[in-house]
Amino acid sequence: MPPPQLAVIGGGQLARMMQQAAVGLGIHLRLLAEAPDVSAAQVIVDHVVGDYTDLDTLRTVVAATPVVTFDHEHVPPEHLRTLEAEGHACRPGPDALLYAQDKSDMRSRLSGLGVPCPRSAVIASRADLEEFGLPAVVKTTRGGYDGKGVWVVRAMADADAAFDSGRGLLAEELVDFRRELSALVARSPSGQVVAYPVVESRQADGVCAEVIAPAPDLDPALDAQARAMAERIATELGVTGILAVELFETTDGRLLVNELAMRPHNTGHWTIDGAHTSQFENHLRAVLDLPLGPAGARSPWAVMVNILGGAVDDLDAQRAVALAAVPDVRVHLYGKAVKAGRKVGHVTAYGPDLDDALFRARHAAHLFTDGVTS
Amino acid sequence: MPPPQLAVIGGGQLARMMQQAAVGLGIHLRLLAEAPDVSAAQVIVDHVVGDYTDLDTLRTVVAATPVVTFDHEHVPPEHLRTLEAEGHACRPGPDALLYAQDKSDMRSRLSGLGVPCPRSAVIASRADLEEFGLPAVVKTTRGGYDGKGVWVVRAMADADAAFDSGRGLLAEELVDFRRELSALVARSPSGQVVAYPVVESRQADGVCAEVIAPAPDLDPALDAQARAMAERIATELGVTGILAVELFETTDGRLLVNELAMRPHNTGHWTIDGAHTSQFENHLRAVLDLPLGPAGARSPWAVMVNILGGAVDDLDAQRAVALAAVPDVRVHLYGKAVKAGRKVGHVTAYGPDLDDALFRARHAAHLFTDGVTS
Repeated sequence: MPPPQLAVIGGGQLARMMQQAAVGLGIHLRLLAEAPDVSAAQVIVDHVVGDYTDLDTLRTVVAATPVVTFDHEHVPPEHLRTLEAEGHACRPGPDALLYAQDKSDMRSRLSGLGVPCPRSAVIASRADLEEFGLPAVVKTTRGGYDGKGVWVVRAMADADAAFDSGRGLLAEELVDFRRELSALVARSPSGQVVAYPVVESRQADGVCAEVIAPAPDLDPALDAQARAMAERIATELGVTGILAVELFETTDGRLLVNELAMRPHNTGHWTIDGAHTSQFENHLRAVLDLPLGPAGARSPWAVMVNILGGAVDDLDAQRAVALAAVPDVRVHLYGKAVKAGRKVGHVTAYGPDLDDALFRARHAAHLFTDGVTS
Repeated sequence: MPPPQLAVIGGGQLARMMQQAAVGLGIHLRLLAEAPDVSAAQVIVDHVVGDYTDLDTLRTVVAATPVVTFDHEHVPPEHLRTLEAEGHACRPGPDALLYAQDKSDMRSRLSGLGVPCPRSAVIASRADLEEFGLPAVVKTTRGGYDGKGVWVVRAMADADAAFDSGRGLLAEELVDFRRELSALVARSPSGQVVAYPVVESRQADGVCAEVIAPAPDLDPALDAQARAMAERIATELGVTGILAVELFETTDGRLLVNELAMRPHNTGHWTIDGAHTSQFENHLRAVLDLPLGPAGARSPWAVMVNILGGAVDDLDAQRAVALAAVPDVRVHLYGKAVKAGRKVGHVTAYGPDLDDALFRARHAAHLFTDGVTS
């Protein structure tokens, strides 16, 4: 077996799907997994089980690999700086990752670049929030995801949980948006950037429920603006690998940046089956500074629907039911135990007709979630 | 981690590519590998290293799996019968595999079904061969592949190596063929069959060099006949999983069966990137008796070119060169050490223009093989 070429920190489904791409390209990944049976540890032979906040554990994992990448954004930046000082290339690096880790820093940096964002302010007290004005969205500056650490505040009492959290908080204007979009790019250290089609992301309870590629009826000017914005942010922030820019399309036709993620992203899962090069393959190609693959769509429409943990416990048994009912979908299961609302897989359908693809993907996902036809 | 659902015997690139499909479907494979570092052992966590001709080793591997499948056709049939008697479903089973293992039995069986084959006879001596008539193709009845164990005999002296081999021999007429085709089907134990588009397979020195999907300018009647023939053989022989029927298209416009393979096949590698469901996914779905996926093509043309071991030793280093020269191809490397002529990977290109796809796939493969542009 050739020596490992890339260390991946974190054993979730993103690392698992990186491995699918790595198998094809013949790239040997070495994984740091949180536990022996996490999603990616099931499929990456060369893995270590340990704590990604422990520097010595990180050193053990990366010892023989020139490059390190990540399943998530939670590795302490000081450890990344140490690894870089010791000769390992972290991609993305700590200077870029900061803006995916800290929403307050992200807002300042993007505003400095002139990138349109919702109005925001760091708040230390209820008085600060009152001064900012309601309604507002209050977010922890660090660590929130999938609707956690985010509160919509229409009356001051709605902010109690936020202030009780004891964490740094950011207030943002409650944007009147028509829908959420996502612009995904891959950027390599040598500066090559490819942009995926801009997609529409539909949320339920703060969690991505489904993605439509491309975003239907998107004004070509907004489409171009979204791609250009993502390319510019990736370049200015020095991102390597995939950058996902989650956007609001406001009711008055503007784009505002909501969040940044510097790793393959749920809004890009459709690319495995729907694009010429998946986001996972381009993430690997980018962080290894290989030439990037074409990021265009292979079909007029692709729809990705998440499988969230529901009434169905045994996804293995349900596979036959779902595939029999809807043969023409691509099923992706992550090897994760079912818990309510947990992302345990996704389904992609593609084709020339959006409604047909939507129906198929939703139908199959629903069979995995609730076990009955919606 | 869920318990293993499927044991795979043999750790070559076919098992490796089965794993790519298994990761997506969330199917846990358990592998018997010939050595610690073979192609599939690099990517399947749950693997045992051992000898597939040893019954106790096989028993250890399959202990917890209800179903067993294969990377190759060389497991002794008596062991498969024992495993079946002990409650494991072998897919394909020994009664079907016989016809992929023994060319003499295959010829008798197909002739009995009325399937057109080259004229053939088992030969035990030079006198038998003279009686059969020259020119002829002489093959060992068992164990040949990729041109090994096959001799074109125009004069009796050409058969010396065949007779010296001490193995059972079959003589076949030297077919005057226009080209070689391959008809691939997947069949499940419950009898569902799906047929892939019939492809043209181009050989060099007895080894598959490139595959074009679909076979250009194929007479629709021959296309239908080839598919029907493959479906009928799969059904009559009780094949489960992928069956590849290698065919001669004769200069006078007939189809003759050349070889059978009962596993994913080199002439189906294009399906990973070019079909709605890859042969590897449909093989898994078939042997697990899951509903089969659609086997149609995603693009007007797909071309697969094998990467055979050549002047390039370090495929990892060459990856950047090939992808930079030809970004729009799908590269598959098998994690195998380079040896002259060995299949170490393949490249697929697809699109609306055959010449363009051929150029791209050949160019990229050539960069991996010889390191220079052809």
